[in-house]
Amino acid sequence: MNDLFLRACRRQPVERTPIWLMRQAGRYLPEYRAVRGRTDFVTLCKTPELAAEVTIQPIDRLGVDAAILFSDILVPAEPMGVSITFNPGPVLDPPVRSAADVDRIRVPDPEETVPFVFETIRILRRELAGRVPLIGFGAAPFTLAAYLVEGRGSKNFEHLKRMIYGDPASAHRLLEKCAATLESYLAAQVRAGAQAIQIFDTWAGLLGPADYREFALRHARRVLDSLKDSGVPRIYFALDAGHLLDEIRECGADVLGLDWRTPLAEGARRLGPAFALQGNLDPCVLLASPAVIAERARRIVAEGAHAPGHVFNLGHGILPETPVEHAQALVEAVRGARAPERKP
Amino acid sequence: MNDLFLRACRRQPVERTPIWLMRQAGRYLPEYRAVRGRTDFVTLCKTPELAAEVTIQPIDRLGVDAAILFSDILVPAEPMGVSITFNPGPVLDPPVRSAADVDRIRVPDPEETVPFVFETIRILRRELAGRVPLIGFGAAPFTLAAYLVEGRGSKNFEHLKRMIYGDPASAHRLLEKCAATLESYLAAQVRAGAQAIQIFDTWAGLLGPADYREFALRHARRVLDSLKDSGVPRIYFALDAGHLLDEIRECGADVLGLDWRTPLAEGARRLGPAFALQGNLDPCVLLASPAVIAERARRIVAEGAHAPGHVFNLGHGILPETPVEHAQALVEAVRGARAPERKP
Repeated sequence: MNDLFLRACRRQPVERTPIWLMRQAGRYLPEYRAVRGRTDFVTLCKTPELAAEVTIQPIDRLGVDAAILFSDILVPAEPMGVSITFNPGPVLDPPVRSAADVDRIRVPDPEETVPFVFETIRILRRELAGRVPLIGFGAAPFTLAAYLVEGRGSKNFEHLKRMIYGDPASAHRLLEKCAATLESYLAAQVRAGAQAIQIFDTWAGLLGPADYREFALRHARRVLDSLKDSGVPRIYFALDAGHLLDEIRECGADVLGLDWRTPLAEGARRLGPAFALQGNLDPCVLLASPAVIAERARRIVAEGAHAPGHVFNLGHGILPETPVEHAQALVEAVRGARAPERKP
Repeated sequence: MNDLFLRACRRQPVERTPIWLMRQAGRYLPEYRAVRGRTDFVTLCKTPELAAEVTIQPIDRLGVDAAILFSDILVPAEPMGVSITFNPGPVLDPPVRSAADVDRIRVPDPEETVPFVFETIRILRRELAGRVPLIGFGAAPFTLAAYLVEGRGSKNFEHLKRMIYGDPASAHRLLEKCAATLESYLAAQVRAGAQAIQIFDTWAGLLGPADYREFALRHARRVLDSLKDSGVPRIYFALDAGHLLDEIRECGADVLGLDWRTPLAEGARRLGPAFALQGNLDPCVLLASPAVIAERARRIVAEGAHAPGHVFNLGHGILPETPVEHAQALVEAVRGARAPERKP
């Protein structure tokens, strides 16, 4: 079994830097577009055989060192009491705007309400048969709450901000419900066979440090802590959070994802020896030439030596317009790079 | 004359913290919407009497301590060789994507091509008659180039990134043309009577430190340096740039704007004694209650004492849906706060 990814997460020695790519099962792959041509996104998430099929596509095509469950961070939101459509961004209805709205939000039983997720994981573990480890994932409570309140992606998240600034008690009640939902949802993923868990805090970077600490960090920490005894590596990835590194140090994860705005060496220096790091090539680099991609990739592999463990990844999801040969060139460059001598 | 703003920019003693708001002449004001009801945005920018009228509206309505020219950062882009429409966001056509496109971009004479800007400034200086100082502004070269290449606002600015990663020589040629254009444009604003200049680097935060230094900072520094001998305070505001503070220290401005993600005390500590700071209330706070607004405003006034000079502002432009009474409550809270004892 290729366990490079798990060893790097655990800060154990590796022969070379492992790599996987956020959204590696996605629209840049012709074989993914072929499946989507006959299946809408929601059906794909809810049909275990198909979700497993697209999860494996990038393992075959790119040779990455980990698979990540094909799903969406909003899957557990639906049984909380909202409808979700994709248009193409998510639209949640009705949005959660008031104390009464928060009252109506449920903490669902995941095995009862989204069994297809765990069935997908079981199929994947059989089909992967140890080729590479399987990563499960979910949103962080703040990011899940952000979608519930706003009802969709947003530039400023005005409704969410209005709630946290104007009615923090309701915000915390909602965040507690999100945290409870995510705890049981992610625990069930581990029981089904997920070998690592990544928590996406996509919107945490919208907050300053004090608000991040109050509304995002402590709820994320609760979820991460709940997974500690499971023994699987826990990855926390907050996007655009270079201003929050001092706070993120306290999240309790095993691995911290960094986007391309924070160099790995700087991240390692500020985050300390307790964390492996994951990242952090700007996904837009994959739009340049293979030579540029290889050069920038090698630089990041070398910089990763400053961390006590390094999993190569993009700094955000791969862009749909990425030429598939460019993604292949990236994986080749990282797999071909010499393992750097660790100097954390 | 109320020169609190200019004194704070110059790190001189002030009796209380001065305040103005980014986009203070804007859609949240009923009197602005009345003007826009009979005039489109571009015509408003190009008609000195009307632009001067809306510039003064927030001085009358809110009692802020500075006026900022009503205009748009893309005004100098049109004579560079693109058409600009607002829909409602800006659309620039044709976008600048190749070396040949960069060749076609001109460095226009501002007095010949956008005389209405300087006429607006002259009218404003007469009409303000010393009530408050008048701030002129422009984009930073990187941000102007970002719009020219992308052709519109964007989440990821893929076209821009493709150019800087894949064809850095063309990117630098374009940035040089932007810098030259902005130098003469801003110098002409000062000659017409602008008493301070703010440079907006709205998209700089998309870059990591090394790319920021190469593609944004050095071109911004050139423009800021060119204004040094004019004697007017030069404000540099990069949005979402909490990860770039070590680099921004080298920009050569007099005042640095911070958005709400970087606390003023932390900014003062990392940026050092050479800069007054401007900021940094999250504009979304103005959607909460006047009590919450006043409390958060007082906290920022107090934190500003850590900087050698502090101009209160929002961390980004005021949102169109802001109740005007909330903007008034903010200005009252800041004007009513005791001048903090400086402890930089």
